[in-house]
Amino acid sequence: MLFNFFPKDANFFELFEKQSLCNVKAAEAFRIAVSGGMLNMEALAQVVKLESEADEATHAVIMQLNKCFITPFDREDIHSLTKALDDIIDMMNTISNRLQVYKITDVKKNLVEFALVMEASAKAIDTAVKGMKDMQNYDKVMAACMEISRLENISDSMRDTALAGLFENEKDPVVIVKWKELYEEAETVMDICADAAHVVESIMIKQA
Amino acid sequence: MLFNFFPKDANFFELFEKQSLCNVKAAEAFRIAVSGGMLNMEALAQVVKLESEADEATHAVIMQLNKCFITPFDREDIHSLTKALDDIIDMMNTISNRLQVYKITDVKKNLVEFALVMEASAKAIDTAVKGMKDMQNYDKVMAACMEISRLENISDSMRDTALAGLFENEKDPVVIVKWKELYEEAETVMDICADAAHVVESIMIKQA
Amino acid sequence: MLFNFFPKDANFFELFEKQSLCNVKAAEAFRIAVSGGMLNMEALAQVVKLESEADEATHAVIMQLNKCFITPFDREDIHSLTKALDDIIDMMNTISNRLQVYKITDVKKNLVEFALVMEASAKAIDTAVKGMKDMQNYDKVMAACMEISRLENISDSMRDTALAGLFENEKDPVVIVKWKELYEEAETVMDICADAAHVVESIMIKQA
Repeated sequence: MLFNFFPKDANFFELFEKQSLCNVKAAEAFRIAVSGGMLNMEALAQVVKLESEADEATHAVIMQLNKCFITPFDREDIHSLTKALDDIIDMMNTISNRLQVYKITDVKKNLVEFALVMEASAKAIDTAVKGMKDMQNYDKVMAACMEISRLENISDSMRDTALAGLFENEKDPVVIVKWKELYEEAETVMDICADAAHVVESIMIKQA
Repeated sequence: MLFNFFPKDANFFELFEKQSLCNVKAAEAFRIAVSGGMLNMEALAQVVKLESEADEATHAVIMQLNKCFITPFDREDIHSLTKALDDIIDMMNTISNRLQVYKITDVKKNLVEFALVMEASAKAIDTAVKGMKDMQNYDKVMAACMEISRLENISDSMRDTALAGLFENEKDPVVIVKWKELYEEAETVMDICADAAHVVESIMIKQA
Repeated sequence: MLFNFFPKDANFFELFEKQSLCNVKAAEAFRIAVSGGMLNMEALAQVVKLESEADEATHAVIMQLNKCFITPFDREDIHSLTKALDDIIDMMNTISNRLQVYKITDVKKNLVEFALVMEASAKAIDTAVKGMKDMQNYDKVMAACMEISRLENISDSMRDTALAGLFENEKDPVVIVKWKELYEEAETVMDICADAAHVVESIMIKQA
């Protein structure tokens, strides 16, 4: 294969921003889907739609990576970042899917809280991703990454509280099985956001 | 350590084919094990036996990788491919094991459907792995990878249908817990097959 | 960034040993926490405390890795090893946390058995990690890694036995859900120990 040494079209940053924008929109749609008490099926369908849009951006990054000899930073870091960004929306899609498969109609309020921190985290990642193309944004990017870490810690407690409440108050074991999974998946979204933040931090430190 | 620059015995392709053949045989044994209504314990034992055979081939790849200075393609890709091929049979082994631990006797028909797509996917991977040593097979290998992706998408729907049916029709929560896990693990086999296909695709694109 | 070619402070081995020591102490605390029939909350709190101590050592390794140009062995292997060592205590922390969230008071004796093999495995990893800085310890390190593999195999059977017993004897589905997870997480600790051992083996083989 002929490598492009200085390929014009190797817009990794643009593609990361596209991925990140899909995450922000999906987090918004998910928050709308679960916030009305009853599940909003239209907003939920939006998450699924955004997930395939995000897949295209991810695929484009991988293609670029295979074609470019010179990359703006470590190939492995590009791969990790694009994967983490994609995993975020994949997991939001999984939760949306499970809400439908389990025929959930009434949304428990703990999930609404998760949706709010997910949205805040997706927006903080967006700030970090947009900032990373210019080292002048170093402090701003690092602050966004720290915020993502903080939100992840909060979500750990949220999951513990939600699970403890579920096992204490819910009598139907099948309902417990369903919501245990939903809460754990919600917290996993936050873990993956923190993974993405760690990749961004590590890229910034190496370039500083 | 002395590196072999052109080691005679560095038959990575041969070892990948050995791994892949174990996967095909295990998928066949698994399909036989679950297709007769009642669980076929002899066929199930075959999956376990093949899993340790596959482990040896995986181990041989890792050993080769540590010894060889020149490899037919990226070291990281060799590692990813051998791991993905091994993860496939590991997960089939896990399902086989759980069927026994949970003392399942009657096999639900949804699992038979999964067994059929698993076998089709293992055979498609075998076509891809056998083809990848010669760039003349480019189109054939890529077509096999696309087929694996298609089967993975089908298996997503199969899992959703199986889970929705389980939660709707099954009254015993313990049976729900058992089969929920089995269906999810079956779909995970297909996810790992798709991972393996992505590694093959990426190797082919880089070499094209 | 200015790389340190021969950085004085790049004590990767020291940091690995610090991580490993946290694992050993946490495994001891966990064993004490679950061995008295009733859950020992003080010992359990110790696991949580050690987990954040271990996080600092992990963070220090990552920071060193980003700063050092020359490392005692492959950067990727350093990353894998520090991650595996950290994953061990993270998973012990997860189990400790779940015991509290699920308001477990009476500890099932199968978990005590897991705690004993976890402790043995953490100590074997400690032997391996301490030995790996000097190639004269090659045989000793490899023997410790084999011991970790052996313990992992034992823990697979322990999990199968524990799960089979749980599903056969326990009538309350909610108790089944809780303990199924605890046993699986306990076995996952052993899987991660085996991952760590594989990284150590691979480092030793490359350097031999």
